[in-house]
Amino acid sequence: MAMVCLSDFEAYAKKYLPKIAWDYFAAGADDCTTRDENILAYKRIRFRPRMLRDVSVVDIRTKILGSEISFPVGIAPTGFHQLAWPDGEKSTARAARAMDTCYIASTYSTCTLEEISAAAPGGLRWFQLYIHRNRTASQQLVRRAEALGFQGLVLTADLPYTGKRRDDVRNGFRLPPHMKVKNLEGAFEVCKMSLLDPSVTWNDIYWLQSLTRLPIIIKGILTREDAELAVHHGVQGIIVSNHGGRQLDEGPATIDALVEVVEAVRGRVEVYVDGGIRKGSDVLKALALGAKCVFIGRPALWGLAYKGEEGLQDVLRILQDEFCLSMALAGCASVSEIGQHLVQFSRL
Amino acid sequence: MAMVCLSDFEAYAKKYLPKIAWDYFAAGADDCTTRDENILAYKRIRFRPRMLRDVSVVDIRTKILGSEISFPVGIAPTGFHQLAWPDGEKSTARAARAMDTCYIASTYSTCTLEEISAAAPGGLRWFQLYIHRNRTASQQLVRRAEALGFQGLVLTADLPYTGKRRDDVRNGFRLPPHMKVKNLEGAFEVCKMSLLDPSVTWNDIYWLQSLTRLPIIIKGILTREDAELAVHHGVQGIIVSNHGGRQLDEGPATIDALVEVVEAVRGRVEVYVDGGIRKGSDVLKALALGAKCVFIGRPALWGLAYKGEEGLQDVLRILQDEFCLSMALAGCASVSEIGQHLVQFSRL
Amino acid sequence: MAMVCLSDFEAYAKKYLPKIAWDYFAAGADDCTTRDENILAYKRIRFRPRMLRDVSVVDIRTKILGSEISFPVGIAPTGFHQLAWPDGEKSTARAARAMDTCYIASTYSTCTLEEISAAAPGGLRWFQLYIHRNRTASQQLVRRAEALGFQGLVLTADLPYTGKRRDDVRNGFRLPPHMKVKNLEGAFEVCKMSLLDPSVTWNDIYWLQSLTRLPIIIKGILTREDAELAVHHGVQGIIVSNHGGRQLDEGPATIDALVEVVEAVRGRVEVYVDGGIRKGSDVLKALALGAKCVFIGRPALWGLAYKGEEGLQDVLRILQDEFCLSMALAGCASVSEIGQHLVQFSRL
Amino acid sequence: MAMVCLSDFEAYAKKYLPKIAWDYFAAGADDCTTRDENILAYKRIRFRPRMLRDVSVVDIRTKILGSEISFPVGIAPTGFHQLAWPDGEKSTARAARAMDTCYIASTYSTCTLEEISAAAPGGLRWFQLYIHRNRTASQQLVRRAEALGFQGLVLTADLPYTGKRRDDVRNGFRLPPHMKVKNLEGAFEVCKMSLLDPSVTWNDIYWLQSLTRLPIIIKGILTREDAELAVHHGVQGIIVSNHGGRQLDEGPATIDALVEVVEAVRGRVEVYVDGGIRKGSDVLKALALGAKCVFIGRPALWGLAYKGEEGLQDVLRILQDEFCLSMALAGCASVSEIGQHLVQFSRL
Repeated sequence: MAMVCLSDFEAYAKKYLPKIAWDYFAAGADDCTTRDENILAYKRIRFRPRMLRDVSVVDIRTKILGSEISFPVGIAPTGFHQLAWPDGEKSTARAARAMDTCYIASTYSTCTLEEISAAAPGGLRWFQLYIHRNRTASQQLVRRAEALGFQGLVLTADLPYTGKRRDDVRNGFRLPPHMKVKNLEGAFEVCKMSLLDPSVTWNDIYWLQSLTRLPIIIKGILTREDAELAVHHGVQGIIVSNHGGRQLDEGPATIDALVEVVEAVRGRVEVYVDGGIRKGSDVLKALALGAKCVFIGRPALWGLAYKGEEGLQDVLRILQDEFCLSMALAGCASVSEIGQHLVQFSRL
Repeated sequence: MAMVCLSDFEAYAKKYLPKIAWDYFAAGADDCTTRDENILAYKRIRFRPRMLRDVSVVDIRTKILGSEISFPVGIAPTGFHQLAWPDGEKSTARAARAMDTCYIASTYSTCTLEEISAAAPGGLRWFQLYIHRNRTASQQLVRRAEALGFQGLVLTADLPYTGKRRDDVRNGFRLPPHMKVKNLEGAFEVCKMSLLDPSVTWNDIYWLQSLTRLPIIIKGILTREDAELAVHHGVQGIIVSNHGGRQLDEGPATIDALVEVVEAVRGRVEVYVDGGIRKGSDVLKALALGAKCVFIGRPALWGLAYKGEEGLQDVLRILQDEFCLSMALAGCASVSEIGQHLVQFSRL
Repeated sequence: MAMVCLSDFEAYAKKYLPKIAWDYFAAGADDCTTRDENILAYKRIRFRPRMLRDVSVVDIRTKILGSEISFPVGIAPTGFHQLAWPDGEKSTARAARAMDTCYIASTYSTCTLEEISAAAPGGLRWFQLYIHRNRTASQQLVRRAEALGFQGLVLTADLPYTGKRRDDVRNGFRLPPHMKVKNLEGAFEVCKMSLLDPSVTWNDIYWLQSLTRLPIIIKGILTREDAELAVHHGVQGIIVSNHGGRQLDEGPATIDALVEVVEAVRGRVEVYVDGGIRKGSDVLKALALGAKCVFIGRPALWGLAYKGEEGLQDVLRILQDEFCLSMALAGCASVSEIGQHLVQFSRL
Repeated sequence: MAMVCLSDFEAYAKKYLPKIAWDYFAAGADDCTTRDENILAYKRIRFRPRMLRDVSVVDIRTKILGSEISFPVGIAPTGFHQLAWPDGEKSTARAARAMDTCYIASTYSTCTLEEISAAAPGGLRWFQLYIHRNRTASQQLVRRAEALGFQGLVLTADLPYTGKRRDDVRNGFRLPPHMKVKNLEGAFEVCKMSLLDPSVTWNDIYWLQSLTRLPIIIKGILTREDAELAVHHGVQGIIVSNHGGRQLDEGPATIDALVEVVEAVRGRVEVYVDGGIRKGSDVLKALALGAKCVFIGRPALWGLAYKGEEGLQDVLRILQDEFCLSMALAGCASVSEIGQHLVQFSRL
């Protein structure tokens, strides 16, 4: 079977992954409305392509927080990569480095931060953090990440409690015994989300800032009010995200929320988006609406499930080619030429 | 089979109830457009969730007409509970009390008001009333309810005649011989809706007020004009309802009508809503749009059909957990923090 | 099988009529978009029902051009009733008289005007007319109709040529040899639509007026411009119609066009509508939007196909009961209380 | 099987063409959203038909760039007609001449321009051009076309690179060995799109103008900005086109873009449209919205696949009959009476 577009990888993963793992990766909260809306919302955006512009050279490179990446697609933080491929996050790190882009490693990795770093020295990586009731545990994670050369700290803001994912409840989802949330070993019993601290507030941003010199990116913002608060509290970046539709169902699609957040932020910090990216042209739409870069979650896992590091590179390369072609067909020779004039919202 | 969400109970009831009973509970008028719109309209409302607010304690208690309930979900009046479970309304009363919420007992119960009261002494209960051509019969029901400690009188306003429910006509629906509309025995032959008085007008509210000191809640209001009249005639509460889509088909979904009614009422009386509640997040949406509390009809019957009192408690507990989680994920630590800023109507 | 609603009759007719006859009655032009939109457009209109109004007596009678009918539903002109039932238009005439309503007999009847009149003396009937190239033929028809006591002349304006109904082309539709378009026998060869005059203009209304003292109703108007012209040329009534979606596909649904026409006419002449009426509540919607009366086409044919005169009475009686119930549930005790306040267009 | 409407030809072609050829003709870019939207967008436009206008004679002739054609439907440039019928573009040329309309021959024809000319001397033909990296090759093509009596030069502007058509990638589409892109033989290796020049800009219009006295029509414009530029650079016509949805997916449907382009152009040059035309009434809609003429792509190929020259004539004749009937039913006796008042955009 030829792997031509991202849905080919999705079909492969659905067929070959154990059902419990597929269900876990695919899960959305409640009726999965938001998970599916993330994708559908892109389809409601129409391009306004421009013709007869010199696109003999198309420059797709960009920078996030000062670091250059080969194209504006990074790897979003998702947990438990060993469920998809034996080498887990080590493969993810290698693929991201090979493709010269940014990988946000999750706290809930099945490899340690040290293993991830060692697997792909020199790669651009950020570390995703939850704040635990046991603040010392969080503090140690931040210091390990900083020491290992991670270049950004991504605080997930939308998980005071875990969303209700019906299939996981039905399946009684838990990690197989031979996998571990290794980053947390020793600190406390793994995989108990109830160890996350639901009392976290904006003030804890100040606490985080006191622990590290890494830039802080806040993930999970969906409203202009929270975007304003994020800027006010001194974060360096915002990832517009609804956790892949796995937390509060029936919130906005991320591409819709992006418009509101970008408007509120007025360029004061970088804004990124995840959720629903399935084609290179989705990346172009997100950038046209003001995102500096997008991050992919499930498609990265499908790539891993297909062929580990190599499969994830395939996924990234397809997105890259599609993004480059979309730019050319829309009349853009570099990412700096991408702007809101390129898109309009469909009446339907 | 794990009972994870309300549709699991629906599937169970559809499978195990006699077809004639399932059809009766499921029935909507004519094409069932309004019955189905009640549900679909919730899906057109999007949350605007807020992040990083302290939701370590989430207080879901509220009050209706001065009585505290454990969370803002009560049991709407529906008839013939013995069709769902042998103990009928006695089980309903027990489950409502166990879950510390309000149960609106229907005139068309298959247990007497006295049996219902005795089954769950001390529970918060309102009594639902139709006005009969034989006014003495209605008067006696009001007095019995008041004497038994019912704390509110719910006047159904949308049934001058019974809606046309095609399946009931095809099935020739009638109660099995061993069940009776016990509250009306002696007063007149049971189950003849034609004994209801289609000449009732707003002035009859005054007549009801002369019979009882109980607060009067009017059920079935869908327009601002009628909401204004209800306030003007001195009711204490309004239930925005279309009788589960069983009366006039192609009226508004109740959650859409709620907006209009709340706006007209301007806080002068409490406003509730029923119809289409299937998830805890639906409750949150209704409260965000101004409802003080919601009532569930068919889902309560599915719970009864599953395991009687215990099954109904399961249903209520799932709604409670989902409502609590939705609040936390939307950033609300108490019902007083819920407001219109939490929602927006989708363009689709 | 119980005949509970009009779709039961549709299912019966589809099952028992010869395919070529079913296809002819069901046919719409081209993609049948307008045929289907006629129905769907009703579903986009929502009621705003009012409560607690005295509906103990509901008066559904009305008048059209001064003649009282038992309720505001008449029989639209459709051709070839013998395809549905052996007695053809004689049965139609009897059923209409039995239900005390108006029957518009088609030029393309399979019984003569004389047979129709004799079958149901004293019934309220209008005659539907096309203008033929051979004007004498048209003139004779008008004079016969007037002499036979027909009380109105309905000029069809939307058929300069016959619409393209694909199934009729595939089937090679033509009348079976034992049926005839009897009204036209002698005048010229039957069933050649090409004998209709496509050069007819508004001035021909004056010519018609010179032939007869009957009121002239124009059928097929869909725009405010043409409604204005109709009033200007002195017609007594307008039937908003798209010929059941059989002529120009992708014109407006008739209930949508009704709004525009009623607005333009400003009460100067009576406005009626046909197309898409399938439930009593559709009649209520049409009246709320300004129609004085509606006419049914295909449902009348389904009734005939079911049981001739008796079947058509069944259809009319169901519509009557449903219309009456809808009025009561919407809070209207007589047709004079029906108004635009009763409806709103859905956002969807 | 009767060939009644264009979808009958589509069904035939899908059944009888080799899968690889069908897939190539049917292909759209990425998710095929734009390909399908081209059709769906027509369905969202409603007619406002006018009645009682003399349509005894309906004149459907029109002129494009001064040449009269029998009706406003021409043949859009599509490649590789031998995939549909052995005689390829020679049949296309003969059918177009027989129907007295314009045929735009593609650079990627499987017959030479000389063969095409010889097959149907005197026919109205335009030549479609890509600009190649090897400018001499393009220049020679222009000169050959002009010498052969082609009367217009259509520059395709939307293909700096070929869109991603998934099925073609899966099928490994390439021409069978016995077919050739004959126009380019000798100039360079055929069928390598990468020989097209992606650095082309508006200035190259001036270069083209320096080569030929033929009028230049630019094909692939979708925005008002580019329409303005086209007029500014002195083209004689614009074809609003998205290459049948084969280039940038999720751009606008062409009929939607037409409105914007016509508004910008303000009559200074002629505007045409292709994409999604499936019925005569689609042609009427396009003309009502300002197109001077439409061009059909895939339907022409289906006609060829059915019966070569004769099949394509069938397709054109059906469109002609349908267009003529639509005009009459909408109340237009000549194309000059067609205007924007005839249509409105549906709310849905």
